Amino acid sequence: MQTLLLNADEVDENARMDRVIDAVRGAFAAYERGDAKMPAKSYIDLPEYNGDFRSMPAYLDVREADTAEETATGEGWDAAGIKWVNAHPDNPADHDLPTVMGTMIYSDPETAFPLAILDGTTLTMKRTGAAAAVATDHLAVPDATSLGIVGAGVQSYTQLEAIAAVRDIEEVVVSDLDAERVADFVAAFADRFDVRAGSVAEAGHCDVLSTVTPVEDPIVGPDDVGAHTHVNAMGADAAGKHELADDLLLDATIVIDDREQCTHSGEINVPYAAGTLTDEDVYGEIGEIVVGRRAGRAGTANTEEGGVEGVTVFDSTGLAIQDVAAARVVYEQADDNDNGYPFDLLGLAD
Amino acid sequence: MQTLLLNADEVDENARMDRVIDAVRGAFAAYERGDAKMPAKSYIDLPEYNGDFRSMPAYLDVREADTAEETATGEGWDAAGIKWVNAHPDNPADHDLPTVMGTMIYSDPETAFPLAILDGTTLTMKRTGAAAAVATDHLAVPDATSLGIVGAGVQSYTQLEAIAAVRDIEEVVVSDLDAERVADFVAAFADRFDVRAGSVAEAGHCDVLSTVTPVEDPIVGPDDVGAHTHVNAMGADAAGKHELADDLLLDATIVIDDREQCTHSGEINVPYAAGTLTDEDVYGEIGEIVVGRRAGRAGTANTEEGGVEGVTVFDSTGLAIQDVAAARVVYEQADDNDNGYPFDLLGLAD
Repeated sequence: MQTLLLNADEVDENARMDRVIDAVRGAFAAYERGDAKMPAKSYIDLPEYNGDFRSMPAYLDVREADTAEETATGEGWDAAGIKWVNAHPDNPADHDLPTVMGTMIYSDPETAFPLAILDGTTLTMKRTGAAAAVATDHLAVPDATSLGIVGAGVQSYTQLEAIAAVRDIEEVVVSDLDAERVADFVAAFADRFDVRAGSVAEAGHCDVLSTVTPVEDPIVGPDDVGAHTHVNAMGADAAGKHELADDLLLDATIVIDDREQCTHSGEINVPYAAGTLTDEDVYGEIGEIVVGRRAGRAGTANTEEGGVEGVTVFDSTGLAIQDVAAARVVYEQADDNDNGYPFDLLGLAD
Repeated sequence: MQTLLLNADEVDENARMDRVIDAVRGAFAAYERGDAKMPAKSYIDLPEYNGDFRSMPAYLDVREADTAEETATGEGWDAAGIKWVNAHPDNPADHDLPTVMGTMIYSDPETAFPLAILDGTTLTMKRTGAAAAVATDHLAVPDATSLGIVGAGVQSYTQLEAIAAVRDIEEVVVSDLDAERVADFVAAFADRFDVRAGSVAEAGHCDVLSTVTPVEDPIVGPDDVGAHTHVNAMGADAAGKHELADDLLLDATIVIDDREQCTHSGEINVPYAAGTLTDEDVYGEIGEIVVGRRAGRAGTANTEEGGVEGVTVFDSTGLAIQDVAAARVVYEQADDNDNGYPFDLLGLAD
């Protein structure tokens, strides 16, 4: 028995986005139903290096009913693992390394054997895009064709890749102060979409907007979005960060991924800490919508509620269950394709 | 930049025991001085598989003064990492796999780059032996020549290997209900020591005793040990487990590795939960002795205390800082020896 090593390229190739989206949807459902175990993210702060480490372990048990028909196997699945990841903002300038680097260990929950070790950096981008796609699928208008993106960094690419898997996106407006980043983004997608540079307001007046910046002062105000825009607020991942103005948030229907993480480090953390935004301003968790306990934009058969209207905001902090779900997709696909490098890490191959 | 993969054999070969002991001693010192960061072990319990996962992240910054002269470099060192480990007791019978399997990610704290990924199972045995050696060095009689071992399982080998590095062990008595295990142990060490099978009491009347069993009913009573035996109680790692009778413990000088872990899952957890043993019965933490804030058997120049006498017990639960310290030794040694398999996990090699 060997452990499959999957580098950045192999994670990229084997993270088939429709399957990652489906697995992340299943993870949100399992979490909502109480079928996931996810200890709180634990942090090691290293102020001497202006950085931190985060450990994100999780287990999830996904029901067949929560996965899409095309990936159905007749039974559900479970999975476990841990992502060890960091944020060292000085890395690019001081060490020619990325700010964020992740390593993922994917384990068989029945025996705990480490089935795979994966590049967690690429995996994070994939599962983050997938989370936005799940939220978009439930909260954007059904006939959405335009996507705005504010922030053309490494996370922006999988936003488009994933959201285009749940809506027929034709037009893309990308906004970033860095013209080179914008040009790179446009070049990467020009063959598939009508993609152009634009202002924050132009991006925000698309049917769907994803914000993927690390700002501490909001850059999207209430006039910057359309009347029924769905906003994926992906950027905030630490106390003090937020991308959307308080009055945009307070007028919107807010859906979060996890109450503890969002109030601590998500888009809502700043107004929440200030008392400007309270629990009552949060409509629900994404898992509640996925399993039908709360209505999305289309309403739901399970409740008396009609569909939500107007501007919707998804506050995504990124959950360990998303990493485990995405790792499973990559591992299974890579294993089927004989990709990766089998390594006898534990000396159990005989 | 690549990540060095180190399998079980490579961990074994590169974990030079004198250096691992020295690094673990430094880790205990750093922890005592407040120069280590170690979030609580987090558990994922999986009763459906009669198993659990544990994540053990840590950072430590070791002062030169706390390392032995022979490994001195003129400055201290720091290190970070995480061990992802499990306990699935049904593995051997049901899956032909070990009960415990560990995977260790060893990271550069300055950038968070994953320098190495190591077999954490072998690493655990090494660092556990090293912890017993550090305690033995401070708590056993200086002229100790005999070592008893109760429990001849996988952890017993590194007990002898490590303790023989701090005392001139000549005679070894090993006790286990499983005759085959005893024979294997004797055969493994017969060329280096006067090693023989014996009763628990014969093992316990050696100068040093290490207990490495998973029992829930104590198997070593007060009459089973000598008047000045130092006992390393290594086996208990979960609530409900203990190897030593309460009256042995209560009459001994008890040294623990960490108050939270020991009261939760260490040798003292059962009498502590029952109220039979209280904080006042605990003499101190091993780090206090290592840095000289409390006397070991030889006394200490830093305090007014004389040396401890009689029976001593070290309650070892195993700390994440030990894993990080041991991983550093293995990584540095393997890197020097061009051992291991460099792998471009993160796609940063160019």
